[in-house]
Amino acid sequence: MNTIGHNFRLTTFGESHGAAIGGVIDGCPPKWKIDFDFIDSEMLRRNPGQSPTSSQRNETDRIEWLSGLLDGVTLGTPIAFMVRNEDCKPEDYEALKNVYRPSHADFTYEKKYGIRDWRGGGRASARTTLPIVVAGAIAKQILVSKGVQIISEVISIGDMEQARKEGDSVGGIVECRITGVPSGLGEPMFGKFSAELAHAMFCLPAVKGFEIGDGFAMANMKGSEANDTFINKSGKITTSTNHSGGIQGGISNGNDIVFRVAFKPIPSIALTQQTVNQAGEPCEIAIEGRHDVCALPRALVLVEAMAAIVTLDMES
Amino acid sequence: MNTIGHNFRLTTFGESHGAAIGGVIDGCPPKWKIDFDFIDSEMLRRNPGQSPTSSQRNETDRIEWLSGLLDGVTLGTPIAFMVRNEDCKPEDYEALKNVYRPSHADFTYEKKYGIRDWRGGGRASARTTLPIVVAGAIAKQILVSKGVQIISEVISIGDMEQARKEGDSVGGIVECRITGVPSGLGEPMFGKFSAELAHAMFCLPAVKGFEIGDGFAMANMKGSEANDTFINKSGKITTSTNHSGGIQGGISNGNDIVFRVAFKPIPSIALTQQTVNQAGEPCEIAIEGRHDVCALPRALVLVEAMAAIVTLDMES
Amino acid sequence: MNTIGHNFRLTTFGESHGAAIGGVIDGCPPKWKIDFDFIDSEMLRRNPGQSPTSSQRNETDRIEWLSGLLDGVTLGTPIAFMVRNEDCKPEDYEALKNVYRPSHADFTYEKKYGIRDWRGGGRASARTTLPIVVAGAIAKQILVSKGVQIISEVISIGDMEQARKEGDSVGGIVECRITGVPSGLGEPMFGKFSAELAHAMFCLPAVKGFEIGDGFAMANMKGSEANDTFINKSGKITTSTNHSGGIQGGISNGNDIVFRVAFKPIPSIALTQQTVNQAGEPCEIAIEGRHDVCALPRALVLVEAMAAIVTLDMES
Amino acid sequence: MNTIGHNFRLTTFGESHGAAIGGVIDGCPPKWKIDFDFIDSEMLRRNPGQSPTSSQRNETDRIEWLSGLLDGVTLGTPIAFMVRNEDCKPEDYEALKNVYRPSHADFTYEKKYGIRDWRGGGRASARTTLPIVVAGAIAKQILVSKGVQIISEVISIGDMEQARKEGDSVGGIVECRITGVPSGLGEPMFGKFSAELAHAMFCLPAVKGFEIGDGFAMANMKGSEANDTFINKSGKITTSTNHSGGIQGGISNGNDIVFRVAFKPIPSIALTQQTVNQAGEPCEIAIEGRHDVCALPRALVLVEAMAAIVTLDMES
Repeated sequence: MNTIGHNFRLTTFGESHGAAIGGVIDGCPPKWKIDFDFIDSEMLRRNPGQSPTSSQRNETDRIEWLSGLLDGVTLGTPIAFMVRNEDCKPEDYEALKNVYRPSHADFTYEKKYGIRDWRGGGRASARTTLPIVVAGAIAKQILVSKGVQIISEVISIGDMEQARKEGDSVGGIVECRITGVPSGLGEPMFGKFSAELAHAMFCLPAVKGFEIGDGFAMANMKGSEANDTFINKSGKITTSTNHSGGIQGGISNGNDIVFRVAFKPIPSIALTQQTVNQAGEPCEIAIEGRHDVCALPRALVLVEAMAAIVTLDMES
Repeated sequence: MNTIGHNFRLTTFGESHGAAIGGVIDGCPPKWKIDFDFIDSEMLRRNPGQSPTSSQRNETDRIEWLSGLLDGVTLGTPIAFMVRNEDCKPEDYEALKNVYRPSHADFTYEKKYGIRDWRGGGRASARTTLPIVVAGAIAKQILVSKGVQIISEVISIGDMEQARKEGDSVGGIVECRITGVPSGLGEPMFGKFSAELAHAMFCLPAVKGFEIGDGFAMANMKGSEANDTFINKSGKITTSTNHSGGIQGGISNGNDIVFRVAFKPIPSIALTQQTVNQAGEPCEIAIEGRHDVCALPRALVLVEAMAAIVTLDMES
Repeated sequence: MNTIGHNFRLTTFGESHGAAIGGVIDGCPPKWKIDFDFIDSEMLRRNPGQSPTSSQRNETDRIEWLSGLLDGVTLGTPIAFMVRNEDCKPEDYEALKNVYRPSHADFTYEKKYGIRDWRGGGRASARTTLPIVVAGAIAKQILVSKGVQIISEVISIGDMEQARKEGDSVGGIVECRITGVPSGLGEPMFGKFSAELAHAMFCLPAVKGFEIGDGFAMANMKGSEANDTFINKSGKITTSTNHSGGIQGGISNGNDIVFRVAFKPIPSIALTQQTVNQAGEPCEIAIEGRHDVCALPRALVLVEAMAAIVTLDMES
Repeated sequence: MNTIGHNFRLTTFGESHGAAIGGVIDGCPPKWKIDFDFIDSEMLRRNPGQSPTSSQRNETDRIEWLSGLLDGVTLGTPIAFMVRNEDCKPEDYEALKNVYRPSHADFTYEKKYGIRDWRGGGRASARTTLPIVVAGAIAKQILVSKGVQIISEVISIGDMEQARKEGDSVGGIVECRITGVPSGLGEPMFGKFSAELAHAMFCLPAVKGFEIGDGFAMANMKGSEANDTFINKSGKITTSTNHSGGIQGGISNGNDIVFRVAFKPIPSIALTQQTVNQAGEPCEIAIEGRHDVCALPRALVLVEAMAAIVTLDMES
């Protein structure tokens, strides 16, 4: 289950401290001239080291393109790419080898597989979102050529400076808007546009909530307040409000698709925490190493990438 | 895209006023003695007419079992079932044939398919959730035999009596809890337990928000507040709190899985609303007919059914 | 795994002597006016009782359409249909309840599921091909509107009259030709047109061989004999020969797609055979009942139906 | 559609003269200690240059393992690997850039995608079978630990020495036998073991025919000759003959699974052939370069690899 999408499809691979992180994109339209600079700029938005709020890992993250391109043009065949994990310091994690970090996936991976890569979170590391950004950057540029734009912003975030001082971390909320989506995209029953977005966002690390349109606030509305009135705007049928967030019955109605994603605080904190080790013995842990105070600065590009992957998949 | 699940899989069919509504369950374990009474009791929880808050459609909703069973025992082959739409009054909807009901799927279906069944909402009718309840009731009874229980409750709802008087409708929030889930279920990357739950809930009509564990509230927490501390409880590793809602890194950790689903107010209201018809001409609409004031009384069983389908799918 | 196809998709259900046999077609293009007479005529080609060589079961096989249609026009939503098993005589099979019929699926089903429907072959009955014919008849009529025709003929068959006298059965070979397929259909690697056809044909009962173009005979050719020379025919690039059977590199080249399917003799024979029962005790069996001497008269429509399903799936 | 398998799943990427060829294996059991020497030995069986009958391309084909392993042990996460295309001489193919090689995929790829990698066959090159061998070698070693063995042999082949002298090529037939398969594997309707094998074999280049058990010969048999008699052999139910090739009703019966695959002659021949170019102009072509006279010496490992992938997939 390392594949997302139906027609535009991304399969990812890689652990934080393995040889490489990468992905295979299947179903990308042929004859598309890739804008590599745009991909790099999106990578930079995700890249740790980009801002003081992010972890200090010095990753050059140079993408190697392995297949699917001829002179930078897509062939219609699978586009494989990877980034080597050059700056690996597994010894940093040696002390964590047998310890379950609170609210990390150490424990659950071990329960699932009976084995885990303890170096830097392994497959559960935030670093494994890199291929999502690459695929998203390709999806985005194709969507832009069709008039679809995706933008996001942080609409809520904890006090990051204070958290850094305290050795703590904070969470926040991202709002994303997809404009220019034609009406009629999405499948009514189990392939609803909203359901695919919810699924995609919950595949991102640290996501604990998702809402579309007015979301949870609609639980407190009356129908007469929540309904979007259809109007004829210069010959085009649209709605006067957008409480629905651009999707009705699982299908896009031509309005902006608007949704919000809640991120929990990053579980890696410098503060000393109680936990247990593999033997079930109590122990203390203080995660030094390199980690962010908040997922959000880099989460923007992730949310947008996922939105792009879902939208292009719907459109293909 | 009328199929949900991977190993335990439900394909549904049917329009509100077509011949029948039904489903095909593939991947159900063989040699399971079906408890038909339990299915009926779950159907009753969904059934309109069950309470004064629900629509008055008189549906007997007798399930016909078409395949996959021998003397009430599952064969491992597809279990097909259906319920006839006996109480159809398409003439009730004749007036709505060319009108787009606000915040309904009339407009989007027409944009997608170029045709729609205007009788009672067609494929977008809440009646199409019936097969989900049936499949969920089967999944539930199998899960119970494995020690997994699913319960839900309404934790927020508008003033329904007042809404009925005003010809309006209200929304609300359902909280669901899955107990007894073993640790290690779920796929790390794009098959996260949380992502599959989010997807499934957003496939239900009128859902606009989903959160797991402390959900959106975690956006305002610090890591030291949000993290769940691992402890050794009588030789078993568990956590002292459950902010994560039973899932870490997409995989169950053995705690209760707890999530909430926000439902918007039902868009069908008796109050007069402005809208447009197919020709784009403004018109007024007052939806008389039979409809609920709130989705929630019947949404409980839907949420639980989806949770059961996802959990059994993960477990298969 | 009771679903075939990706974009045009058929899910089937039903046992020979259960309540009904049927299917759900997902992905059928909307706004198609169904030609029900054509479906009936295809059903007749499959129908036992149609000729003295076929089994004598008196099935009216009236199709009930359950969903997906409005006034006989497709809605784009799932088309469910079923045929009731009215002429069931399970008592005919009572004697076979604990006996493994030679070269039937009794033994393997029991090994797989630990339970089997012993009445008339259950899910393994040839009757379960009925939904394939229905879906194929719909696919065919859509394909015809696009200029694609599918025809088949029996090119080899045993002496059926003699086999009948001897209480034996015979096999044979069907050749099928798909004309009018545009070039460029099929996926290169694991979705080759040829591979999908091979898969589909081997899903039919009693199929033991499949070859495309010159097939097995090409194993004895030289490249200079087997290669198809490209030519310019009135401005259109085509080939002067068609050893390849219309597919190169898994993708259609615009020529007729030609393939052959080998059917083994029907395993149900009146002759006394040795076998064992569930307890492993040797016993004799003479399958009286109603069964064909040869699968081929009815196999033609099955081969064509599968070819139509695969081709429309590729085309969708 | 560059993915094969359901539970044990291989996604491949790469063109003959792109940067690399590789694959991602998803669903491999965790905690398996990989036998890399065995993979190398399987690679050697596929490797051109291995024998005078194969093409002279000097490929070292060193596999780089990118993910999914910790100290050579599988983690349960995706196993990505690649082989760089070091010995690329695209200039060899410059002359073929605008010419359609007879019975190659040049023409069909161009029709499908509107673009093709003309260098060495691109995605249609036999070199793209390399990841199948790697995944097959992993599947094989896991199967061996479960008592399943896969062996194949060439049972028919043209006169290769004469073909080489004449600048021609030959085809042939491979027979493969899978021993030790437990009964009960395979899905009855559209996931038949035989259908999955047929599909997998037809995904290999140059395959034109597939038959299982007695295959096409069964078309000439009577039922009394073709049926396999069940017997009790020392307390185990088996059959006295194996005309069915180990599969009945799509499900394994515990006997050896035996099938044959027909390969056409390799279309690249040194003999001068007539063809047309992209403009539709007639031209001559003599494919010098490096190519095999026959696919079969290397096809053995491919057939076995595919058989292993399908069998482990069924078993997972």
